[in-house]
Amino acid sequence: MPLQFADRLGNIETSAIRELFKLLGKPGIISFAGGFPDSAMFDVEGIKSAVDQALTESPGVALQYGATEGFEPLREQLSAFMAGKGAKVAANEMIVTTGSQQALDLIGKTMISPGDKVIVEGPTFLATIQCFRLYGAELVSAPVDADGVDTAALERLIALHRPKFVYLIPTFGNPSGALLSLERRKKVLAMAVKYDTLIVEDDPYGELYFGEPPPPSLLALSSSVPGSRDLLAHCGSLSKVLSPGLRVGWMIAQPELLAKATMCKQFSDAHTSTFAQATAAQYLKAGRMPATLRKVRQVYGERAMAMGRALGRELGSAVDFALPLGGLFFWARLTGEGGATTDAGEFARRAIGQGVAFVPGAPFYAVDPDASTFRLSFATADVARIDEGMARLGKAIQAQALG
Amino acid sequence: MPLQFADRLGNIETSAIRELFKLLGKPGIISFAGGFPDSAMFDVEGIKSAVDQALTESPGVALQYGATEGFEPLREQLSAFMAGKGAKVAANEMIVTTGSQQALDLIGKTMISPGDKVIVEGPTFLATIQCFRLYGAELVSAPVDADGVDTAALERLIALHRPKFVYLIPTFGNPSGALLSLERRKKVLAMAVKYDTLIVEDDPYGELYFGEPPPPSLLALSSSVPGSRDLLAHCGSLSKVLSPGLRVGWMIAQPELLAKATMCKQFSDAHTSTFAQATAAQYLKAGRMPATLRKVRQVYGERAMAMGRALGRELGSAVDFALPLGGLFFWARLTGEGGATTDAGEFARRAIGQGVAFVPGAPFYAVDPDASTFRLSFATADVARIDEGMARLGKAIQAQALG
Repeated sequence: MPLQFADRLGNIETSAIRELFKLLGKPGIISFAGGFPDSAMFDVEGIKSAVDQALTESPGVALQYGATEGFEPLREQLSAFMAGKGAKVAANEMIVTTGSQQALDLIGKTMISPGDKVIVEGPTFLATIQCFRLYGAELVSAPVDADGVDTAALERLIALHRPKFVYLIPTFGNPSGALLSLERRKKVLAMAVKYDTLIVEDDPYGELYFGEPPPPSLLALSSSVPGSRDLLAHCGSLSKVLSPGLRVGWMIAQPELLAKATMCKQFSDAHTSTFAQATAAQYLKAGRMPATLRKVRQVYGERAMAMGRALGRELGSAVDFALPLGGLFFWARLTGEGGATTDAGEFARRAIGQGVAFVPGAPFYAVDPDASTFRLSFATADVARIDEGMARLGKAIQAQALG
Repeated sequence: MPLQFADRLGNIETSAIRELFKLLGKPGIISFAGGFPDSAMFDVEGIKSAVDQALTESPGVALQYGATEGFEPLREQLSAFMAGKGAKVAANEMIVTTGSQQALDLIGKTMISPGDKVIVEGPTFLATIQCFRLYGAELVSAPVDADGVDTAALERLIALHRPKFVYLIPTFGNPSGALLSLERRKKVLAMAVKYDTLIVEDDPYGELYFGEPPPPSLLALSSSVPGSRDLLAHCGSLSKVLSPGLRVGWMIAQPELLAKATMCKQFSDAHTSTFAQATAAQYLKAGRMPATLRKVRQVYGERAMAMGRALGRELGSAVDFALPLGGLFFWARLTGEGGATTDAGEFARRAIGQGVAFVPGAPFYAVDPDASTFRLSFATADVARIDEGMARLGKAIQAQALG
């Protein structure tokens, strides 16, 4: 008899993306499909000396079991890091998580009973959709434009559905690339208080801005909106700015939520690798982060500009997009101009035929997918490969228009 | 309004252990309460050169996102490691997990629907009880003696409850220290086939034997019991033999279960730290593990002997225990001889008063706790401190008998 798996596995569907990713291994493909930072940006020397320092200073601590809440010296460094971003957070107001993916998982485990409503952006981070659905959430989708989530629509949805919480990526969203405006940020916080609704702010990209810094995070702004701080859970990560391989993220929340999440984490993985945490703590302590951030902002900024120019040049009016001000992604829409398809899945298959890959947008919608959308990451290809890749995309769209 | 947490949090209760652990921070306490290996056993130089090698050879891989299934070179090394323990396991028949705690969590997430029955040993690992209950399992407890789980009782319980799976720590169990006999191992595998029941074998301590190696794992034996391999999930870990701070564990199972667990892991923490995995892979590749294992076996063996002698000398007939043949724990029972209490909770409080700590056994029972039991770890104190600690325990039991 085959194994009987848990009912919760019936809540999720992963085939669409899996099918596509199978195609990406083809030789010669230029890929804009990933959500990875560029490995060439990693400060290898800095991390080498951080781990050496950690294993020299207190090896018995760095290699031993640690507190579920996180390694104290890292929490202190992260507290200082958050202060630099305008958010006053004591070390004991956060827990360290195994990447910010685990923060999302712990929020799901701690908050969601089967059938609970959760509002997410449409589109939003794919793994969030599946993560919350595994805990039985019924997802409701709030529309997004270039200024982030549409707050008027969001308020109507909150009033209608009274969700367990609202999940947002306000700064350089994945996949939208959108930046929630300061005005809308204030509205979101006011809404949290008005409807007594928990807001989850996922902020892995906030440091990756290309020009002016973005508006303060919801967390930083919450100090000026009475009552909102207790209704906010904030997730951060070193993955996009330092190294995803460390798997170091964090979650900031009010004490009761943090205590429950810590208890759930104890039975999820006991604690995040002390070895990785001690290394991250030494890295931050060594003061290398500002230079690392300057470098990634500059490089990703150049690539984003290059992709914007090339997209306009090669695809013209066949696609519609906004130039992202930070993060890793372009979010684009097929207009159908010139007779080209508006089906991004079909376009992706043709693009693979031309030797270039990206991710169709439909799976990023929890409900009502817009099949004309797609996501391009500019993080891992240099400017020359971006130009070549966009030229191939141009051929793919022309082939479509003709075929 | 206070936050409304998920219903599943109502399934678990963590106060008993938490209360006790608050007492352990007192200065001057000799603690036998932990489940930790001794940090003095860590091969710091070996791990230092392993991480240096990993960051020199392919830093862009060691610091980048990795496959959810695990870092391929580590899976290959673990495949060879398992072969050395008599189990033929291909690299793609396992996934790497964030400690074996995560393997348990993924088994819970993948297999347990609320209300499902799961059979565990009584007593069993505390975090397993809570982990499975968070997914809604109804736990059934099978009795354990010095030869491990009572297989006749286990078979009756399987026939009666038709559980989703049976969870066992066959080799030097936590907290029981018991070693499942070869004969009983064969019976367990036959039972798996007869009742078409999944068996979860948790094996973090199997390498920590003090004399003769223990019988082969259920996994190794499954090749001689047709049909049993597909009904076995095996969890392993580097935590007790190399370093818990790396958080590197693994799970071996049939392809379908492994695929579902991998999907769940993707939304739990994306993957285990590549940084830690690449370090572990280099460590195993460097061939340092056999010497490390010889050392820990010798040191823990000496400490176990010392504790056995001192326990007999200082507590005499007031406690009943079997000498463990491996692992980290003594499991003992208060006999009540000489008028001493049989309440291990009361004994623990008096022991703290004498400057010595251990863990009462009751919380290790999913149902029907035996309040006369307690657990002593001999791993982290040297022989002199074990002698002093047992003398203090002797005073605590006398104080009880008098008071």
